[in-house]
Amino acid sequence: MPFHYPRTIHFADTDAAGVVFFPNYLAICHEAYEEALSAAGIGLNTFFAQTGTVVPVVKSEAEYLRPLVCGDKLRVTATPSGLTMNSFAIRFEVIRLGTAEKIAARVRTEHVCIDAKTRERVALPAPLAAWVQAG
Amino acid sequence: MPFHYPRTIHFADTDAAGVVFFPNYLAICHEAYEEALSAAGIGLNTFFAQTGTVVPVVKSEAEYLRPLVCGDKLRVTATPSGLTMNSFAIRFEVIRLGTAEKIAARVRTEHVCIDAKTRERVALPAPLAAWVQAG
Amino acid sequence: MPFHYPRTIHFADTDAAGVVFFPNYLAICHEAYEEALSAAGIGLNTFFAQTGTVVPVVKSEAEYLRPLVCGDKLRVTATPSGLTMNSFAIRFEVIRLGTAEKIAARVRTEHVCIDAKTRERVALPAPLAAWVQAG
Amino acid sequence: MPFHYPRTIHFADTDAAGVVFFPNYLAICHEAYEEALSAAGIGLNTFFAQTGTVVPVVKSEAEYLRPLVCGDKLRVTATPSGLTMNSFAIRFEVIRLGTAEKIAARVRTEHVCIDAKTRERVALPAPLAAWVQAG
Repeated sequence: MPFHYPRTIHFADTDAAGVVFFPNYLAICHEAYEEALSAAGIGLNTFFAQTGTVVPVVKSEAEYLRPLVCGDKLRVTATPSGLTMNSFAIRFEVIRLGTAEKIAARVRTEHVCIDAKTRERVALPAPLAAWVQAG
Repeated sequence: MPFHYPRTIHFADTDAAGVVFFPNYLAICHEAYEEALSAAGIGLNTFFAQTGTVVPVVKSEAEYLRPLVCGDKLRVTATPSGLTMNSFAIRFEVIRLGTAEKIAARVRTEHVCIDAKTRERVALPAPLAAWVQAG
Repeated sequence: MPFHYPRTIHFADTDAAGVVFFPNYLAICHEAYEEALSAAGIGLNTFFAQTGTVVPVVKSEAEYLRPLVCGDKLRVTATPSGLTMNSFAIRFEVIRLGTAEKIAARVRTEHVCIDAKTRERVALPAPLAAWVQAG
Repeated sequence: MPFHYPRTIHFADTDAAGVVFFPNYLAICHEAYEEALSAAGIGLNTFFAQTGTVVPVVKSEAEYLRPLVCGDKLRVTATPSGLTMNSFAIRFEVIRLGTAEKIAARVRTEHVCIDAKTRERVALPAPLAAWVQAG
């Protein structure tokens, strides 16, 4: 079952067109990823320092299907899947809540695990691999 | 009793110093203001369009007392107080939760109500005035 | 010849990993698009109001090839191409300047022109169509 | 003579009220500070690592005098002044260019130099002290 992250759209997310600025959909999805990791016992602020690894996003794809305005209530789902020993993808759906739920965006990110110093690819640390596998 | 807004620090809030970028404390306080208005039945996306007014921030002051890192849990309190017929202030406290609560920032904003077209000062719309007075 | 936009990486672009937060690459590319339109005599703040149209981004794809740090100097190129009567794409390259130039990201966005009120697809206004065609 | 930083307002700076979101004035002033340091030979990305110090903003004050819209051209001036052995202030003026120049905001920040590890106050590194004194 994918992780569900509740989110409200704030003024800071919007731009002069009156709706969420498209790069902010990706930032909101990254929040869902952070919360999913946190719920799995992985704290972003210490985990990567402890393991000596970082997991940068190397690709993203997004379809922006509906505008979102200040005050909109969302549910963001995050579903990871393994790609290789040192990489994984996450599929996100951004759902606008209301009398009828509507999908507002579909986002996919790819993440590669690297050594923080050498920047060589390394295997996912076990807790992260477990989270990906459980997705 | 001041309004209490719970917030978690996300990656998007931080900068290369590893902590929350100082302008983002103000953005986080503005979220608390939006949520306080919403809890009082005032939806930012429609209220100002309906009343023909906007309430820009004309001043801000902030003391940044403690760094905040990704994953930190906060409680932000927002306490409004009237200044004139067409203006009010809000005091915010950003509290970092944990075994011992610590104040991370004190912020104060001033807001002036103006006509969206003429940009002349106008009296606060009644629901907003009521929210300020109840602060 | 594609439009060239010079940009320096600032603290506000970075995150706690010490490098540019990936959604901010898209925001930087959008700046290049705005500057390209401006150079073609199209001012974002008035053009869309005057024509009654908006041109939201409906898709984005990005490859993040190299980390960027505070102080890095960039050249962002933006090359538009027509898709249909009411849509176009832009290819961006984010180049990190230095003794050896390095490509830091490739980004592609798709834009659809719609009526600001009905949100029905409409043909690109002539100056925008001309800019796309000249790409 | 204060440092002059030219800046154009972009979509990413604005919010659904159609103007620059007030915390972003502070981010724009911080860009001017970064550029002023860079012009003085101080690169943010290496200087603080090399000296083992960081210089967080501990206070900010701002008056937001005029709205700014997408496409507005600015000149931001930054004038530092020493406070103590380990702290300094910067006064910023955000000027909107045009047929008549208009001041759009006045901002003041206070910065304290601390050891990056112990977080104890330490004297400003010499190049930074020189920049403050030359302000």
